[in-house]
Amino acid sequence: MDNINNIMLQAAEAFKQYRKVSGKQKAVFLRAIAEEIEALGMELIHTTMEETNLPEARLLGERGRTIFQLKMFADLLEEGSWVEARIDTAQPDRKPLPKVDIRKMSVPLGVVVVFGASNFPYAYSTAGGDTASALAAGCPVVLKGHPAHARTSAMVADAILRAVERTGMPEGTFSHVDGGNGFEIGKALVMHPVTKAVGFTGSFAGGKALFDMANQRPEPIPVFSEMGSINPVVLMPEKLSTSSESIAKDYAGSITLGVGQFCTNPGLILGVDNADLQSFIKVLAAEIEKVSPSKMLNAGIYQNYEGKKTVALAQENVTTEAESLVEKTDSIQGLATVASVDADVFLANPTLHQEVFGPYSLVVKCKDLAQLATVIQHLEGQLTATFMATETELQANDDIVEALRNISGRLIFNGVPTGVEVCYAMHHGGPFPSCTDARFTSVGPDAIKRFVRPASYQSFPDSLLPAELQDTNPLNIWRMVDNEWKK
Amino acid sequence: MDNINNIMLQAAEAFKQYRKVSGKQKAVFLRAIAEEIEALGMELIHTTMEETNLPEARLLGERGRTIFQLKMFADLLEEGSWVEARIDTAQPDRKPLPKVDIRKMSVPLGVVVVFGASNFPYAYSTAGGDTASALAAGCPVVLKGHPAHARTSAMVADAILRAVERTGMPEGTFSHVDGGNGFEIGKALVMHPVTKAVGFTGSFAGGKALFDMANQRPEPIPVFSEMGSINPVVLMPEKLSTSSESIAKDYAGSITLGVGQFCTNPGLILGVDNADLQSFIKVLAAEIEKVSPSKMLNAGIYQNYEGKKTVALAQENVTTEAESLVEKTDSIQGLATVASVDADVFLANPTLHQEVFGPYSLVVKCKDLAQLATVIQHLEGQLTATFMATETELQANDDIVEALRNISGRLIFNGVPTGVEVCYAMHHGGPFPSCTDARFTSVGPDAIKRFVRPASYQSFPDSLLPAELQDTNPLNIWRMVDNEWKK
Repeated sequence: MDNINNIMLQAAEAFKQYRKVSGKQKAVFLRAIAEEIEALGMELIHTTMEETNLPEARLLGERGRTIFQLKMFADLLEEGSWVEARIDTAQPDRKPLPKVDIRKMSVPLGVVVVFGASNFPYAYSTAGGDTASALAAGCPVVLKGHPAHARTSAMVADAILRAVERTGMPEGTFSHVDGGNGFEIGKALVMHPVTKAVGFTGSFAGGKALFDMANQRPEPIPVFSEMGSINPVVLMPEKLSTSSESIAKDYAGSITLGVGQFCTNPGLILGVDNADLQSFIKVLAAEIEKVSPSKMLNAGIYQNYEGKKTVALAQENVTTEAESLVEKTDSIQGLATVASVDADVFLANPTLHQEVFGPYSLVVKCKDLAQLATVIQHLEGQLTATFMATETELQANDDIVEALRNISGRLIFNGVPTGVEVCYAMHHGGPFPSCTDARFTSVGPDAIKRFVRPASYQSFPDSLLPAELQDTNPLNIWRMVDNEWKK
Repeated sequence: MDNINNIMLQAAEAFKQYRKVSGKQKAVFLRAIAEEIEALGMELIHTTMEETNLPEARLLGERGRTIFQLKMFADLLEEGSWVEARIDTAQPDRKPLPKVDIRKMSVPLGVVVVFGASNFPYAYSTAGGDTASALAAGCPVVLKGHPAHARTSAMVADAILRAVERTGMPEGTFSHVDGGNGFEIGKALVMHPVTKAVGFTGSFAGGKALFDMANQRPEPIPVFSEMGSINPVVLMPEKLSTSSESIAKDYAGSITLGVGQFCTNPGLILGVDNADLQSFIKVLAAEIEKVSPSKMLNAGIYQNYEGKKTVALAQENVTTEAESLVEKTDSIQGLATVASVDADVFLANPTLHQEVFGPYSLVVKCKDLAQLATVIQHLEGQLTATFMATETELQANDDIVEALRNISGRLIFNGVPTGVEVCYAMHHGGPFPSCTDARFTSVGPDAIKRFVRPASYQSFPDSLLPAELQDTNPLNIWRMVDNEWKK
């Protein structure tokens, strides 16, 4: 733990310098990280394949996304308007009291601790979205590598450290803690007084434990834990009557994509019990039976999947509709599975509301739309919710759509929840328990907002204000000046 | 408690309708509240004078501010851009994968519980900033009236209820709970599953208790507690050498304004111990001795002031520099007091870092600027920090300025911290323990951000999107469309 204390104190020292680094310089740093990761070449890909069982094509894609994210934050910093500058100029002659000059912008929180995710060894781990957004915000990052891909994490960390050195960032701007599974190490990082925010992607148990710890500190700090979600999908009758087969095929693909190891995996499908729903289930079951099993990320994830699935399927009145019939060639391959249950049973049994992380989904058969609405009322917070419907059904069922939106971060019309576009309009963060803070996204440029707070400057001489707030707008950014957006 | 459950369930029902009310309609509602409060006329002012001992002129001013705030949020809603709409249009031909259409905007959190503040019976109570911003956001409000001005709170609540009825808002959009001092009632409101956020202005003990409760709920919710602050003021030597007398006079006024009952009261003054600081203290002491004592808000506030002040002055090596010499004419008048202490003693004694809510300030005498910087490093989070300096000193002491900014929400150059302008650039919210969430302001239009979260809509038909996100931009608001700000 001495080592951790030293790392944290070095990060705190680095913050004193790093918070003064300009956006343009931080952009150079982020681009250098991207270059250093690219320079790791196929050695990185092969290492991660060994550690995670993820296929090459997926890892090449994820590496591309990671590099895209780093460049996206570099673009954001170069453009500069993200600081939300607000300027209210003085009115010395205002009656009854003169108005002082006040200017406001976002400033970094301080040292951020990031926990790498097991299911995204690049895009949500060492140089992933949390790290990139915290560094972009001006916060040093202390990264706890995920033990399931320790070598990958160390390689990427070395790439970041090379970028730190190459671009002249302060020592301690990034640190890598290779703490294995140690709960005590994670706790020491979160409880250290230097830590000002925490980013985490993983299980509910892990994310909630960090959240609770952080709130029990003498100085509570924000924790952005992205945890579980069953991502409800509502199949409306009219839509289902015209396209139950194609929906079933699309969903068989979405449920089993990446062996179901996505936080947006559709784990719950709600429909009105009728002949169309029966034929949907039949096609879905037939598709699931044909899915070739793949190795899951690691033995722990596989055992968790098997354990949770076994518990779910063993609940009273749950029917296993299909399990992949393709023979396993490895012990930790996860078999795709779908089950069904009546809404009455689902409503009465909270176990069935829990996430089964893996290629699994539960179809809930409702008596009618009223019961379907009741089921939605009893769901917890979700990352996504999907509404499969005709436009007429969308229009006529405003209450169901509103109820879904009220429990989720992203509402999808006639699509699948898997696939999280990295863009401004993406909100990846839903009400508790899917996340600990529904007000912030972990995907897209707005993820930077997690690691800043506003600070006001009152009556400062222009030359001594940050460039973002100076009269001449030297950075040419969008600002709210005396209640008007201006550039 | 049955009554509270009914109120909360009614608020939850109201939310289902109120969240669909357009910005323009909510603006009409907020303006109606302002009108109804104005219509209460001098009867309201006189009632509050009896309940709070605040003078007529101050209450007229505060009523004006309250009405201004309601109209400010009405303006914000009418303009409409506050929802931070982001639109990423589809790219069906993108390789390797097509891009879906995604649009994002702020949506209300749900029912908000607001606790009225004792020191601002209008502007931070029943129809104050928390209520106005939550209602503007689309959240029903359940208001716990402050027992120290129960009649004022009931009158204002009735005015709001008249506005609810007059403008056709759903029943339950606003509810008033007159629970007296009951801790149990506050707890029941915060713990009720319907509650999605809490606004509070008051003591550290009260605000922290609500924060802890909210985090221990099965579903944790955000709590915006604005608590204590000693608002450090740094007197730089060169500045002091030229204007110690005028600074002392300004600060005697700021320390005793409103009997010191402001969260931004300057409770800590840091300077380098030299002849100029001695003469500053001498003038400040002489001014303080002349201040006529006024009645504090109530007996509880007075007793708290006397108790905390007595403890502070009794600490070893603290010198009482002055206490008002004007005779008291009422038992609950608070006597203005200033004390001084050496920085060594201050650093070693955490009791001296605590707020004494009332007309009190402590001057800390530092050996040199290095020790002054050390004192700043040991301060907790603050609403404000003030730097009294020449421009040369501001420029030359970047580290001190940065350190002050890092612990505070608003940094003031050559001014006093009292007086919180209601405008876009105001950030009223500092790091813990001054507030439970430094990322949000309780003053100005951005206060609305406390009660919303983003929600994304993916692949929605244009006609069924909220107006804020439709292609033609029918509300003519500023939006980020495909990475560009547009109107």
